[in-house]
Amino acid sequence: MSHRTDIEIARAARKRPIQEIGARLGIPAEDLIPYGHDKAKVGQGFIASLRDRPDGKLILVTAINPTPAGEGKTTTTVGLGDGLNRIGKRAVVCIREASLGPNFGMKGGAAGGGMAQVVPMEDMNLHFTGDFHAITAAHNLLSAMIDNHIHWGNALDIDQRRVVWRRVMDMNDRALRDVVVSLGGVANGFPRQTGFDITVASEVMAILCLARDLGDLEARLGEIVVAYRRDRTPVRCRDLKADGAMAVLLRDAMQPNLVQTLENTPAFVHGGPFANIAHGCNSVIATTTALKLGEYVVTEAGFGADLGAEKFFDIKCRKAGLTPAAAVIVATVRALKMNGGVARADLGAEDVEAVRRGCPNLGRHVANVKGFGVPVVVAINHFAGDTEAEIEAVRAYAAEQGAEAILCRHWAEGSAGIEDLARKVVELAEGGGGNFAPLYPDAMPLMEKIETIARRIYHAGEVVADKAVREQLRAWEAEGHGHLPVCMAKTPYSFSTDPGLRGAPTGHVVPVREVRLSAGAGFVVAICGEIMTMPGLPRVPAAETIRLNAAGQIEGLF
Amino acid sequence: MSHRTDIEIARAARKRPIQEIGARLGIPAEDLIPYGHDKAKVGQGFIASLRDRPDGKLILVTAINPTPAGEGKTTTTVGLGDGLNRIGKRAVVCIREASLGPNFGMKGGAAGGGMAQVVPMEDMNLHFTGDFHAITAAHNLLSAMIDNHIHWGNALDIDQRRVVWRRVMDMNDRALRDVVVSLGGVANGFPRQTGFDITVASEVMAILCLARDLGDLEARLGEIVVAYRRDRTPVRCRDLKADGAMAVLLRDAMQPNLVQTLENTPAFVHGGPFANIAHGCNSVIATTTALKLGEYVVTEAGFGADLGAEKFFDIKCRKAGLTPAAAVIVATVRALKMNGGVARADLGAEDVEAVRRGCPNLGRHVANVKGFGVPVVVAINHFAGDTEAEIEAVRAYAAEQGAEAILCRHWAEGSAGIEDLARKVVELAEGGGGNFAPLYPDAMPLMEKIETIARRIYHAGEVVADKAVREQLRAWEAEGHGHLPVCMAKTPYSFSTDPGLRGAPTGHVVPVREVRLSAGAGFVVAICGEIMTMPGLPRVPAAETIRLNAAGQIEGLF
Repeated sequence: MSHRTDIEIARAARKRPIQEIGARLGIPAEDLIPYGHDKAKVGQGFIASLRDRPDGKLILVTAINPTPAGEGKTTTTVGLGDGLNRIGKRAVVCIREASLGPNFGMKGGAAGGGMAQVVPMEDMNLHFTGDFHAITAAHNLLSAMIDNHIHWGNALDIDQRRVVWRRVMDMNDRALRDVVVSLGGVANGFPRQTGFDITVASEVMAILCLARDLGDLEARLGEIVVAYRRDRTPVRCRDLKADGAMAVLLRDAMQPNLVQTLENTPAFVHGGPFANIAHGCNSVIATTTALKLGEYVVTEAGFGADLGAEKFFDIKCRKAGLTPAAAVIVATVRALKMNGGVARADLGAEDVEAVRRGCPNLGRHVANVKGFGVPVVVAINHFAGDTEAEIEAVRAYAAEQGAEAILCRHWAEGSAGIEDLARKVVELAEGGGGNFAPLYPDAMPLMEKIETIARRIYHAGEVVADKAVREQLRAWEAEGHGHLPVCMAKTPYSFSTDPGLRGAPTGHVVPVREVRLSAGAGFVVAICGEIMTMPGLPRVPAAETIRLNAAGQIEGLF
Repeated sequence: MSHRTDIEIARAARKRPIQEIGARLGIPAEDLIPYGHDKAKVGQGFIASLRDRPDGKLILVTAINPTPAGEGKTTTTVGLGDGLNRIGKRAVVCIREASLGPNFGMKGGAAGGGMAQVVPMEDMNLHFTGDFHAITAAHNLLSAMIDNHIHWGNALDIDQRRVVWRRVMDMNDRALRDVVVSLGGVANGFPRQTGFDITVASEVMAILCLARDLGDLEARLGEIVVAYRRDRTPVRCRDLKADGAMAVLLRDAMQPNLVQTLENTPAFVHGGPFANIAHGCNSVIATTTALKLGEYVVTEAGFGADLGAEKFFDIKCRKAGLTPAAAVIVATVRALKMNGGVARADLGAEDVEAVRRGCPNLGRHVANVKGFGVPVVVAINHFAGDTEAEIEAVRAYAAEQGAEAILCRHWAEGSAGIEDLARKVVELAEGGGGNFAPLYPDAMPLMEKIETIARRIYHAGEVVADKAVREQLRAWEAEGHGHLPVCMAKTPYSFSTDPGLRGAPTGHVVPVREVRLSAGAGFVVAICGEIMTMPGLPRVPAAETIRLNAAGQIEGLF
């Protein structure tokens, strides 16, 4: 058991030069574009050259519904990658990039923890290789071109009241949520009300993460609906001729970033779309590239399996033609106790009954993932205070659901602590028991897709939506968007839309308040609850204590 | 003479690996942080290790007042660096980074031209090494922390009507010039009017370009005045505890970027402050590092010598303790003709008299620069249509002013075309004729500094300023800012404040409309005319034709 902090462990990492990490995957040094000595992008020519190779096996790491107790999904993803390498499988980890802005609000650190981390940790939580800055620039170029087009005569006849494309900034800045622009007179354009979202909420982010290559990226950018005319016909990015320049701004950002774990396992860290109004997975291009280079690719999806795994299967896998070979559902004794009604302050005491009461949350996720035809194993991410009886209760419950639950000590021990899980994953992936299929067919009407997810995954009793919402969905179907998957935006804390309703509720009502079209990304967003797309800073922001120490190291970021 | 375009020449460049360019300057590979194979940042430890080395000679390239005919200041800076290397002097070029946003308005390309270019050209005009994105993030973090502070109770008692710190974006977006933020209710803060500037206009940019090292950077950031209280006392960045986190965001951006010319001369490309409301020079840290590594450092300043050279001498050299060894004033026959009253459309025809009529503009710049105690040579940047008689007229006029004018063909021929200028520069720099001193002493009152520049450099008859402006200057003096240099913001197209008044006007009136305190950068800005700090896009933005071609190359950017 380590008594060092995550950042102390990360700083002490014995990193290998990134060219050496690339060489393990057969990437020649000239096809790695270095960003410092420990980060690199993989060249597009090299990626294109891999086209005809067979794919490795894709392993999804997902989780029970998140609680304040912490589940450790990223830590388990990283640890499993190391564990697979330890048992002789050439494994690659694929995770998301972190957003810069939120680090200055609460303490950050989105690269795993303990002995299961990806490094360089500081860089990954700051500018990294500049991908998010490129997305910000591409998004805001389109915004500027919209107002510029209106300013110079509005030949496309955009209804200024129906501009739906906002601006973005990678910063927690509540003052920008709702703004009036173009004040100050004729030279500054026509005043109108709009706002900023945080960069990870940009449709450009979702597009970058779903595009197969640069050509597909540009085509998807062109499809973005930015505004409507008075007659409600859409105005697209392509109509403004912004798609080419946006693709230029995103050219480098489209190339996956290669880094390494503490144990020098190759890790692709690329893309990071919101997990509510977008699909919450790392980029398709990173995943498909990793599948050509590794025998095993371990990746994760945002939030719990009700949101993250469902979108991973129904959006990312469907669109990219991916077939997951197995899924790991991460649970902790502590989080199951919270699902069983224990308050956070009382998590220290043994409470086997509470664990048992919380287990149905795990059980439903197991059944849901199995329902996609994907073999499942449960990872019990070990915390120091867990008792043997509590752990046994989880094991017994999982066995009743037809899933093995394996205790994992990767946080404290690295790959040595997660060998059993790695072996089980290989057994499942190579056992031929998988039979993956998305939850619903493309041809199903949009409202029916929403109802299918709500009933089959959330176990809701009813979906309610205003006439305006239903009409909007029908209008999009009439315009040819009916084949798109739906992207559910609801609280991650419950199967229901009530964040306080833990466990495995049934018969609840899912209200669809609003629907949005992400025509470029290729999905329809169903918003079921308050979704915040621009965070604010807390009363005492972490920024107040973030600084460089005398050695030039960053303090306060983690 | 080359018939290829700049971008064709740049793409055909025989670039050497950046480690080899660094090695020419004695920078070990481990002290170069690569960004791709042709860009790198120089490590801070290495820079610190240079402290006790002697300095090379600093050569400033400046110009006559800019005209639409083009002068070629950057091209001459790059060419002279190549030329000095050709005659056996170890030379380093120091130029500014380009702003991303404006490239999507008009065609860009700020890396020289013809056979005198810095490469990689595309990268330099796009994200480059991310410095400007880091400045944007640092600036906007401070903005968010101001509104956040007010939102959570305003313990510092900021007068919401007197917040002077705006937001920035590296984009030409007129809609953001004047905005109202924090609409939408209690959760979004207190509504107030503010705006965005383009990133290069940020005081953070000016600070980064004047800071000696990371410690100095953080101290200067802390000094930024962001707002005032009702009693007019200033609220600083340090009061909000934003300085540490801003320094963290700027840590990598503070390290100079190393690239190369077409002839593989090392070039530092670092920083790019506005040349009107800021001082318009590349970073101090790049220049001082280059002086430790090269025998000759060739750098440039923004606009003509009335603005650029004056600020280079009175702000950058004064603050950084630099002593320029010689200055090159770039002129073209075409630009002198325009100064002599010829319209742009008529520049094709020989007109020796017009050249002679325009020469007093050159003459005054020569005298001004000599007045700083810096030896001067004139570079006639050759254009294809120049006639021998026109060139001879410039030579003869310069000789009358006590300066040699040397014809330079670096655009067409590279270093071979600029050997004579390089030899003359060496002669001046090593001749011991220099005796540099700034124009005015630190102790001079602020208004008197403005008047001194207006009378001695612009040959104005009078400076006019409202009582409010004069009182503001006296108030800053009372607060201890009286020792700061002044940074003049006026049109670059004339010695006067009337952009149409070419040549060498005298007796004109300089109206000081507004003064601003850049307490972190360390200067007082005197605004003499309309200064645009957020550009707009034209009717047909360049973005509409910028795209990736089938080979993945960028088209339309240049």
